[in-house]
Amino acid sequence: MKKVYINATFFTMDRENNIFENGMMVVQDKSISYIGQYSEDKLTDVDQVVDLHGKWVLPGLVNAHSHILMTLLRGIGDDMLLKPWLETKIWPLESQFNTEIASVSAQLGILEMVKTGTTTFSDMFNPNGIDSDEVMQTIGKTGIRGAFSHTIFSLGTEEEQKLNIMQAERFARNYKTVADDRLTTMVAPHSPYACTPEALLESLRISKENNLMIHIHVSETDYEVSNIEKCYGFRPIEHLRRLGIFDQPTVIAHGVLLNDEEREILKQHDVRVAHNPISNLKLGSGIADIVSLLNAGIKVGIATDSVASNNNLDMFEEMRTAALLQKGIYKDATKLPAHSTLALATRVGAQVIGMAHTGSLEINKKADFITIYPYDKEHLQPISEAYSHLLYAARGNDVCDVFIDGKTIVKDGTCLTIDEEKVIAEANRLQKTLSR
Amino acid sequence: MKKVYINATFFTMDRENNIFENGMMVVQDKSISYIGQYSEDKLTDVDQVVDLHGKWVLPGLVNAHSHILMTLLRGIGDDMLLKPWLETKIWPLESQFNTEIASVSAQLGILEMVKTGTTTFSDMFNPNGIDSDEVMQTIGKTGIRGAFSHTIFSLGTEEEQKLNIMQAERFARNYKTVADDRLTTMVAPHSPYACTPEALLESLRISKENNLMIHIHVSETDYEVSNIEKCYGFRPIEHLRRLGIFDQPTVIAHGVLLNDEEREILKQHDVRVAHNPISNLKLGSGIADIVSLLNAGIKVGIATDSVASNNNLDMFEEMRTAALLQKGIYKDATKLPAHSTLALATRVGAQVIGMAHTGSLEINKKADFITIYPYDKEHLQPISEAYSHLLYAARGNDVCDVFIDGKTIVKDGTCLTIDEEKVIAEANRLQKTLSR
Ligand SMILES: [Zn+2]
Ligand SMILES: [Zn+2]
Repeated sequence: MKKVYINATFFTMDRENNIFENGMMVVQDKSISYIGQYSEDKLTDVDQVVDLHGKWVLPGLVNAHSHILMTLLRGIGDDMLLKPWLETKIWPLESQFNTEIASVSAQLGILEMVKTGTTTFSDMFNPNGIDSDEVMQTIGKTGIRGAFSHTIFSLGTEEEQKLNIMQAERFARNYKTVADDRLTTMVAPHSPYACTPEALLESLRISKENNLMIHIHVSETDYEVSNIEKCYGFRPIEHLRRLGIFDQPTVIAHGVLLNDEEREILKQHDVRVAHNPISNLKLGSGIADIVSLLNAGIKVGIATDSVASNNNLDMFEEMRTAALLQKGIYKDATKLPAHSTLALATRVGAQVIGMAHTGSLEINKKADFITIYPYDKEHLQPISEAYSHLLYAARGNDVCDVFIDGKTIVKDGTCLTIDEEKVIAEANRLQKTLSR
Repeated sequence: MKKVYINATFFTMDRENNIFENGMMVVQDKSISYIGQYSEDKLTDVDQVVDLHGKWVLPGLVNAHSHILMTLLRGIGDDMLLKPWLETKIWPLESQFNTEIASVSAQLGILEMVKTGTTTFSDMFNPNGIDSDEVMQTIGKTGIRGAFSHTIFSLGTEEEQKLNIMQAERFARNYKTVADDRLTTMVAPHSPYACTPEALLESLRISKENNLMIHIHVSETDYEVSNIEKCYGFRPIEHLRRLGIFDQPTVIAHGVLLNDEEREILKQHDVRVAHNPISNLKLGSGIADIVSLLNAGIKVGIATDSVASNNNLDMFEEMRTAALLQKGIYKDATKLPAHSTLALATRVGAQVIGMAHTGSLEINKKADFITIYPYDKEHLQPISEAYSHLLYAARGNDVCDVFIDGKTIVKDGTCLTIDEEKVIAEANRLQKTLSR
């Protein structure tokens, strides 16, 4: 199948930030086979020519850290500190989860993600009480691309901990390449504070044996850093380095509290950071120094974390907040300019989670792209300043169409792969069954 | 005319944060004559019963500081520091403005405001090159409530400065109560750095003689504070206090850089603060300490500033950012909780700009209210956590209907008082005429 998309402005988000006004993109099956100026000869041997009516086209956004199974917990336990929030709200509620709740949560989260332009995500899920195979299948049907990773926790009895690792290992082995290659998994020890060194070493082993990335929360709060230092004699980054975690490709979520020495360690091991600006603010964790991370040559992606600490999955809002915060803390409006920030949420974000085959509109990359029709939207006027509006003025539901692997997932704001009405109804019904 | 609104959840935003699920609101002409539980007897002698189909109803939002005439400059000069941004981008562009540009900018800005739930605004406009009477009439026709204030600048020759003050005085006198009492004006010396002490004293005189509030930018950047201190021997707040400015009711925009002593001065004179969190971040000015302002008993409103430093007029985004920032800088998730922040954008914001007759759903207050239909919006699920979603998950265009003075201004997302298509077309045509 060969489709040609014409009559649009293509923001490629490639390394040179090429923009093709009234450009052309050819999609052969699941991949981009041409992107550039309009060219008559590309129109031969084509199955379909799609007129985009002057829309803006950009690569689908990459959400580098989420917990979609928690979508049913949106708005529960606002305005609380991280530790009591997890211990008295989130974990007790999660302990009541079952496969039905998990599946509906996942669909509700993905529905919001794709409708706001996210085509790729990297998620960490709490497997307790759920049939993770069934949930993985449900996710596969939505058409989204991403990594769905079984959390390893050191909670409960020794038996329970062993079982948790065994199940994580099984999940990792089974789901490395599924759903037409769109879905994969990572090894996901929750954090240095929720995992014993033994569990971290087991995670490392599973990661090595299956050639999978590691996904872990690190350096989120002052409490975590001082606690790890007290328990192990080192700050979290050094603790993990000594265990050998960073010998495997790793993405750490948060990295709010890092010093120069730690950034040097991350750089040396090509450890990537998933930056969750809104969650870090909302939970009172602080503001990560992204400018220093980027200056140190570390790859940074942008992420929402869960809706319980955000409280939405709108990556437009997230990347805007990321850019604004760096300007604010540095008192320097030139920090994280529009095109750099958009890159973190697209091309660089894809690299962060080991999916460099998406994240920009380039030849041979996956045909994961989104469109925005700006002409009837007052907040995107005057339209001449499109690049600025994409970062500073747009909102998630400005997104019109969403394509993943060349397939239409959202058409004119409606998701074609998820029954929206049913998922919303089920989400409300099931949330009421949780006791709190 | 007596209308009863039923079948809705009313978030009154009154002092007790009363919420009436399946409540009732009676609007007699322009004002609220009943708000509370559903009551059969209120249905007699009624002209119309409006079924709101389970919508959420809240008071219209109050944007305490804007520059709607700059709406045509959206996206121009991003990622620049305040001083060069004003001097090399904004002011040269504004110097090319004419009445047509100003009127279209105003309409485009108000279109965005009302469609995202703002019913009341307080604006400072640059009068250069425009017929401000005509612009005021244009604003009147949109149906919005607010204060539109003629800036006083100490720029140009002595003659030009005199003319500027004369025109400001004429505007202040003529527009104290217009457009069915919906519109008023304030005396608006731009800032301590753009006004001489003489201009500030003239502003004070005009304010006293016409019994009008003063609206001024103060303590926005480190540069301003050190510069005023160098020029006058005092920081901006003390400089203004000594001139007597604070003897009149005053709202200062920004207040990013304030110390305890200055907060004490503001409190003593009941000076209010319009907090512009996104603009302050975007221009690299910093983060205002709102928690300390509120602890000192100072009234704080929330505001967008202009789209040139925001870049939209979405008050949902603005109030969310306000709440998140305080949690982040204090590393304390309990700061500025949802209901307090919503109050700043409604009831308190109205007090800040001297319009306590709006901003909450209470008897005798103006019938300025907005509705949101949450049931088909995935990011507002589960709907049981409505209060949280209003602050942490909603976006401006979740707003369905907007009423001001009891009159429908926006119906199901469409503005009834502004020709949307025409304004957008004109905005794009006129922006292209500006040389830069
Ligand atoms: Zn997380
Ligand atoms: Zn301003």
